[in-house]
Amino acid sequence: MGLADKILAGDTRAAARLMRGLEDGDLNAMEELCHLYSCTGKAYIVGITGASGVGKSTLVDKVIGSLRQRNMTVGVIAIDPTSPFTGGAILGDRVRMQKHICDQGVFIRSLATRGWTGGLAKAAISMIHVMDAMRKDIILVETVGIGQAETDIIRVADTCILVLTPGMGDEIQVMKAGIMEIADIFAINKADREGASSLKVELQALLEMNCYLPNDWRPAIVLTEAVNSKGIDELVEEIFRHRQFLVSSGEIEKRRKERARLELVNTIESTIKDYIDAEIDQEYIEKLTDDLVRRKISPGAAAREIIDRSIKRVH
Amino acid sequence: MGLADKILAGDTRAAARLMRGLEDGDLNAMEELCHLYSCTGKAYIVGITGASGVGKSTLVDKVIGSLRQRNMTVGVIAIDPTSPFTGGAILGDRVRMQKHICDQGVFIRSLATRGWTGGLAKAAISMIHVMDAMRKDIILVETVGIGQAETDIIRVADTCILVLTPGMGDEIQVMKAGIMEIADIFAINKADREGASSLKVELQALLEMNCYLPNDWRPAIVLTEAVNSKGIDELVEEIFRHRQFLVSSGEIEKRRKERARLELVNTIESTIKDYIDAEIDQEYIEKLTDDLVRRKISPGAAAREIIDRSIKRVH
Repeated sequence: MGLADKILAGDTRAAARLMRGLEDGDLNAMEELCHLYSCTGKAYIVGITGASGVGKSTLVDKVIGSLRQRNMTVGVIAIDPTSPFTGGAILGDRVRMQKHICDQGVFIRSLATRGWTGGLAKAAISMIHVMDAMRKDIILVETVGIGQAETDIIRVADTCILVLTPGMGDEIQVMKAGIMEIADIFAINKADREGASSLKVELQALLEMNCYLPNDWRPAIVLTEAVNSKGIDELVEEIFRHRQFLVSSGEIEKRRKERARLELVNTIESTIKDYIDAEIDQEYIEKLTDDLVRRKISPGAAAREIIDRSIKRVH
Repeated sequence: MGLADKILAGDTRAAARLMRGLEDGDLNAMEELCHLYSCTGKAYIVGITGASGVGKSTLVDKVIGSLRQRNMTVGVIAIDPTSPFTGGAILGDRVRMQKHICDQGVFIRSLATRGWTGGLAKAAISMIHVMDAMRKDIILVETVGIGQAETDIIRVADTCILVLTPGMGDEIQVMKAGIMEIADIFAINKADREGASSLKVELQALLEMNCYLPNDWRPAIVLTEAVNSKGIDELVEEIFRHRQFLVSSGEIEKRRKERARLELVNTIESTIKDYIDAEIDQEYIEKLTDDLVRRKISPGAAAREIIDRSIKRVH
């Protein structure tokens, strides 16, 4: 029995093994993922993003608890930034989530931003597929939202939650920079801190400036105190309310198409990279690199020379 | 007279125009860059990286001043993270650097992480070439060092400076995560804060654990207070000492080759993407995306179908 079949039969360790294989860029693992693919598309994907220090991991932890009480199964993909600078703190946070580790209904997996040949977004979507095939009802994707790939993933979630805290400063900047357009729900965490209600008012005012049509989704603002388990059920209710909206408006189809398109583009890119690795002889690259250093050729001309040696345009 | 010739003749506005063209993926701009390429390879590239809030921009600002006092011309490429979260603060920092804007010997340019088709690393290297052709002696590349592309750029700089501050916590984690291998100089900024000397001791202890050969470069540790202009000359001296080391050891050739290789690989990828973009009509992508949403095809199979339509292997 292949890994794909084992996963569909409920084998958690097979899922972990497949993910590891995918992480290593193992070709068999990719094949298995293709087998799984036809059994996916049922899970609901929630992206949770926000700067470091806003309490995302604690919030995710509590949201898991709330979803479990509703008898829903949960997958979590926690994306660590490549950066060594924040790596430590995030590892600590992760530990907090580990209490769910003995719960068969929860599957948590960290995703390092390094080492995935196909790019981070592709990696995250692959992991979503595996958890989807494991029949997780809700998959939470947590990221600090820095970098193109991370933003891509959040943009293609079904529901996107932006976590803020009072007193972080530059809230207006945050808004201007365009996060407004991708957040479906704003969670103001650490809401017991000073400035929570004024941040809410500020957010509301900014949202008012958008010209919503009668049938548009108007982003919800929820005050939470993850550490004290406050506001969590309300946040989860908003997720369901947004899902209801997506389904009844047909918007969910659009989001899923966006996700498929992103995955397709990323897969094309990684397939091209594989072509290059397989077809181009390293000695020739070495020679051209020397020519580049000596400025005997330009990078564009060198690239064309290499490409013409290994591939041809169809037309 | 083309943009390339104008730039070589010292026309700053032509340089700005070329960079804008490159940013837009304009084909003429790429051609002009090819013309320029043979006149590049003289500038010395310094990467400056570190978490948000360590004071990188102020440090860069003061380093510019110190280099100008030595009659060296300076180019600065400031890479803004895509993230809306830190965008605001960074814009503010940038303003601080603007006092050099009237100085003909300084050219500062921000690089957004979004929208460059060829990827961030390729974009940064293109901008390095333009500033190099503008005869800037030293080019400073400032980044928060999150994400693969950013790390790539820093890795291929001639000298890489990692900026830390006391009291950020998790210093050991920083080290473990592998930044040690790419930093040539550590700047402990805000060194008037408590913990600066213990951070230095900690760093030294960690560096001792590396088994350096007699001829290896041993990373320098410099205490700085950028705001108070302290330690800046010492930092700049260390940059020159490192350059001297690279030149006398022949190591500089290796670094430049690494940079050329990175650029070549990135150019190959973007060229193949251009091929595919030219061959594949959007309707076809649309159809395959629909098939993906309906799980009628897997992403891998869809990607292969698209690629096979546009390019063929020669062998």
